[in-house]
Amino acid sequence: MKLTFLGTGAGIPSKERNVSAIVLNTANANNELWLFDCGEATQHQILHTSLKPRKINKIFITHLHGDHIFGLPGLISSRSFLGGDDTLTIYGPLGIKQFVETSLQVTDTHLAYPIEFVEITEATSIFEDDQFVVDVELLDHGVFSLAYRVTEKDKLGELHVQKLKDLGIKPGPIYREIKDNEQTTLEDGTILYRKDFLGADKKGKKLAIFGDTKYVPQQASFIQDVDVVVHEATFSADKEDLAYKYNHSTTKQAALLAKDANVGALILTHISSRYQKGDEAVLLEEAQTIFPNTFIAHDFYEYNIK
Amino acid sequence: MKLTFLGTGAGIPSKERNVSAIVLNTANANNELWLFDCGEATQHQILHTSLKPRKINKIFITHLHGDHIFGLPGLISSRSFLGGDDTLTIYGPLGIKQFVETSLQVTDTHLAYPIEFVEITEATSIFEDDQFVVDVELLDHGVFSLAYRVTEKDKLGELHVQKLKDLGIKPGPIYREIKDNEQTTLEDGTILYRKDFLGADKKGKKLAIFGDTKYVPQQASFIQDVDVVVHEATFSADKEDLAYKYNHSTTKQAALLAKDANVGALILTHISSRYQKGDEAVLLEEAQTIFPNTFIAHDFYEYNIK
Repeated sequence: MKLTFLGTGAGIPSKERNVSAIVLNTANANNELWLFDCGEATQHQILHTSLKPRKINKIFITHLHGDHIFGLPGLISSRSFLGGDDTLTIYGPLGIKQFVETSLQVTDTHLAYPIEFVEITEATSIFEDDQFVVDVELLDHGVFSLAYRVTEKDKLGELHVQKLKDLGIKPGPIYREIKDNEQTTLEDGTILYRKDFLGADKKGKKLAIFGDTKYVPQQASFIQDVDVVVHEATFSADKEDLAYKYNHSTTKQAALLAKDANVGALILTHISSRYQKGDEAVLLEEAQTIFPNTFIAHDFYEYNIK
Repeated sequence: MKLTFLGTGAGIPSKERNVSAIVLNTANANNELWLFDCGEATQHQILHTSLKPRKINKIFITHLHGDHIFGLPGLISSRSFLGGDDTLTIYGPLGIKQFVETSLQVTDTHLAYPIEFVEITEATSIFEDDQFVVDVELLDHGVFSLAYRVTEKDKLGELHVQKLKDLGIKPGPIYREIKDNEQTTLEDGTILYRKDFLGADKKGKKLAIFGDTKYVPQQASFIQDVDVVVHEATFSADKEDLAYKYNHSTTKQAALLAKDANVGALILTHISSRYQKGDEAVLLEEAQTIFPNTFIAHDFYEYNIK
């Protein structure tokens, strides 16, 4: 799986950072892309990547501030124009449906695909398939704001090929059958139990993407032991008062949360335009002092989840 | 007055051309900016110019397709954030108010200034002040689409300074008074008539900005003798069938209209992304063959109206 940051600024776009949007390449069978937030000009940022709008089939909105949703109508329209024809599911706070539907109605936009809306009103599990579970937690941002946690399910371990060969079973479709079923009966009547031929389960990855939020230490439980957390850091460590006033977090607060939750890595984003390129090292160090494995995102920054 | 083209593409943004937006610097007392259409990322384009969002006090929307309005909510929000506090008036088809108000309500956006909406339902005069008159004409684009014509009123000619001096009237505030009033009584009781001391009126400029439209020869009457017309040319001359089918115009059709109307200059915009940089010369020549004083806009192209 891989994260691509398309917009890493706060509030309004600047020449250095666009407003919020992050793509998760799920690396599942269809290489589906999941988009987290969609600030204005997200589709413009995509033009500078190899990402295809038609591969985005889920959009998760953390909260309804304009810098997180004003790119939705354009992206949705272009996805249709560019050949997208499978269902798009949009998750987000109550109101996201009204915003999108009004935008499409007023502009007389007819899409080549259906949109499903899942409006979220509480901390709950919002999605599950064979590979992933997605849960949400409520944040503290003045308006209803969410953190999304994506849990990849554990995968079966590797097949012990040598062990099968030693039994005289030659490679072929039978190997797939043995891996896919708990027990398999061979032509000679022998029953093989999968558990005898598999290595240890491969642990699934966990990541969490926070919407805008004030620092709330109790949020640590939601991200306990996840591999990577993307957290806002609108302000530098010395601006705790401003962060509190405007319902945002500082670099230090994000790092404290990451440390408390014993996560694998922390990525800071949603950086105020008051900080320039030259300030990044300072912001990063403020967090790393508390939580060493911290990174700071910039537009088009990529992070591989291994 | 000056036109700055912020977006000159059609339908969806490309790396070469953003979606529609044109700024008119009115060169009036406050150097007000008037924006014609506001495709997504118009505020991002503005970041690469010296234009100030707070100086935009009128926005004219030609029609409600997404590539002409999806930048409105973001620009409106940022205008407030960046210190804009005087009234913004938005002119456009019925529905523009619902789109903007829904966007602001859903995102809980509180502006530092009021917005006035003028929803247009017929060909009429929509604005007049001391300096300008703005009229609209209905176009033919499948959806309700407008052309805006801005008529600058004639200005008084220059004061014949030498003639006043010859009468023994020395330069000072009295010159302003003589110019501002039809007649002025001097301290010695002499009555001066303005008409005796002014040169010929300075002819005001006229320009027209078209929304998307099919070629309709009768539209020429609306732009008769204007100084400059901005017209869409989504397609090359050989694609008349596509232009007709999708309610757009070709380079040649725009030029025919300009010629019929005896305008001063024609600027082509809203160029389909099927045409690359290398095709521009061909598109331009197609129009110039019919109407020589044609220009083709690109993003950040400026045109001085002299």
